[in-house]
Amino acid sequence: MSHKAPYAVIMAGGSGTRFWPLSRAANPKQLLNILNDTTMIQATVARLQPYIPAERVLVITTEQLAAETRRQLPMLPPEHIVAEPVGRDTAACVCLAALLVERLDSEATMILLPADQVIGPADRFQRALQVGVETAHGGGLVTYGITPRFASTGYGYVKVAEELHRSEDGVSVRKVDRFVEKPDAATAQSYVDSGDYRWNSGIFTWRADVVLSALSQHTPWLVKALAPVADSWGSDAFAAALAEAYEPLKKISVDYALLEQADDIKVVTGDFDWDDVGSWDALYDHLPADEAGVIHQGETLAIDCRDSLLLSRSGQTIAAIGLEGLTVVATADAILVCPKGQSQEVKAIVDRLKASGPQNLL
Amino acid sequence: MSHKAPYAVIMAGGSGTRFWPLSRAANPKQLLNILNDTTMIQATVARLQPYIPAERVLVITTEQLAAETRRQLPMLPPEHIVAEPVGRDTAACVCLAALLVERLDSEATMILLPADQVIGPADRFQRALQVGVETAHGGGLVTYGITPRFASTGYGYVKVAEELHRSEDGVSVRKVDRFVEKPDAATAQSYVDSGDYRWNSGIFTWRADVVLSALSQHTPWLVKALAPVADSWGSDAFAAALAEAYEPLKKISVDYALLEQADDIKVVTGDFDWDDVGSWDALYDHLPADEAGVIHQGETLAIDCRDSLLLSRSGQTIAAIGLEGLTVVATADAILVCPKGQSQEVKAIVDRLKASGPQNLL
Repeated sequence: MSHKAPYAVIMAGGSGTRFWPLSRAANPKQLLNILNDTTMIQATVARLQPYIPAERVLVITTEQLAAETRRQLPMLPPEHIVAEPVGRDTAACVCLAALLVERLDSEATMILLPADQVIGPADRFQRALQVGVETAHGGGLVTYGITPRFASTGYGYVKVAEELHRSEDGVSVRKVDRFVEKPDAATAQSYVDSGDYRWNSGIFTWRADVVLSALSQHTPWLVKALAPVADSWGSDAFAAALAEAYEPLKKISVDYALLEQADDIKVVTGDFDWDDVGSWDALYDHLPADEAGVIHQGETLAIDCRDSLLLSRSGQTIAAIGLEGLTVVATADAILVCPKGQSQEVKAIVDRLKASGPQNLL
Repeated sequence: MSHKAPYAVIMAGGSGTRFWPLSRAANPKQLLNILNDTTMIQATVARLQPYIPAERVLVITTEQLAAETRRQLPMLPPEHIVAEPVGRDTAACVCLAALLVERLDSEATMILLPADQVIGPADRFQRALQVGVETAHGGGLVTYGITPRFASTGYGYVKVAEELHRSEDGVSVRKVDRFVEKPDAATAQSYVDSGDYRWNSGIFTWRADVVLSALSQHTPWLVKALAPVADSWGSDAFAAALAEAYEPLKKISVDYALLEQADDIKVVTGDFDWDDVGSWDALYDHLPADEAGVIHQGETLAIDCRDSLLLSRSGQTIAAIGLEGLTVVATADAILVCPKGQSQEVKAIVDRLKASGPQNLL
């Protein structure tokens, strides 16, 4: 069975604050090269190759980030990088994406994925996507689950039901029993022990016409507002039409508009590695450390340190003595010092800055 | 009994590394304004006023530091700021100072003191100096002892013998039994418990002719080498003559050349506060902290921190989360992160830089 080549839609409008002070409102996580020389969105596009060539990739971002996103992704057709004029939550974004993909190919299947995850190896990831696309071709909604490596309280989970299909190379397709929010530690452990739960990757696949049909049923006002805009895509009138259509839209999430309404959701469990890299703490798993567990990025000098992350992007030398489990990040205008395990609290710093701090640090 | 007004000689050639990264070879502790708006050498001169007016103050420094020292002390006669061409330990420095003071006044008493201590209040300090000067006028060598506030292992001690004199306002003069080096913790505690020990302040007073007489007896080659140089003081020939005389000198300390040889040493115990401020840790006692014990200097933002020192001299905001007992110091080219209590280890950083690090950080 051969299908038309699918499209990928990368959701890249996030204004992540969890990597402050490196991430800023104008330079969020997906546009940063925290892990290596490529930015996370560049890596997201690259790991789709060759399965989804660049000309079949769309990016939905914000007006503030559009120019930098285009600069980082010169291989994409410029009009494929679409800037939402205002944030109206994920259902509007998915509806717009589905309308645009449908214009490109009325029978197209689309893979919706975040711009800021770490996934590998690419061939195993693409193999899972391929199974997902084949599954979605028959209708319904496909999500991707990751077998939990530990009892994470930072991820949402998917409870799986009976297996519908298993490929020769072990990619499993099951019915979804239900989605669950981030659990507490004990619940997370019970999920892992049961074997019936997967981490919810936030990656989805469906046919554009299936999405639009579902949205037309549950949130018809959304499709009605955005369908005419899609017709002007590629013309000079598009941006203004999009702004006019978006402004009055009610905020509604794809979880509410699609996932909770759908009765045909399947989950593909692939054997690829996946990490949402949600905070500085996550980097301890992704960057090379010395024998004492100290990660050195930029100019650093450590004496008697263990299990720490020293990251200088300011040109300054970070000189560390006797540290254990400490994250130090230096940028041109700010220095973060925070114990490992508490980097979720970086949000509190950003909140404080929003309330009363120097606004140029946001 | 009225004596001629004494001179003060400030030894200011130290290249302290203990406040790295703020202190540098070209900008050591005595030239820094770590504690307030005045530098430590400026404070040292100021707290002698009005007892020792600026025109009776000499400073012995190094060629590298002379220009900045003159800039910071415009109230001193320029020739009173004398630059040693090379370091030849403290006996050469004291010999030179005594020769210069003797040229100003052949019967002068001189107070020798470091440039980088925190002492107060000034009136009580000056009162102790006054008693010391009166005592030194009768001959012999006078040192100043501080009643220990705690069992410091970072200071040298003076063991006192019988009391020779006590002023009406309680300034005590005793014979010195012996000087002792920095003790271990148990020994330090026994010193404190005994009541017979004082912290050795490193401040001395003696008549210039008494010093020179003692040096002529124990290290005649030193006086012989430097006496002719002193004659050219104030002329253009001085610097070259000093360089020529200093170069071949053997290094010898004032402890060895004077203190260990002298049989008439007295100690004045004043009731002034004294701190050598030997490391970042010492600042915890001298800078104002918030209710959680966090010291904020420069731009800082602390959440859930306790007992920490956050000092930004780089313009960067130090954002700290969940720290306890941590010192963070940011300058334009380096950031120090070091637990409280380990700041003596800063020397290890400087040693590492000397060996292999960027030399511009020294």
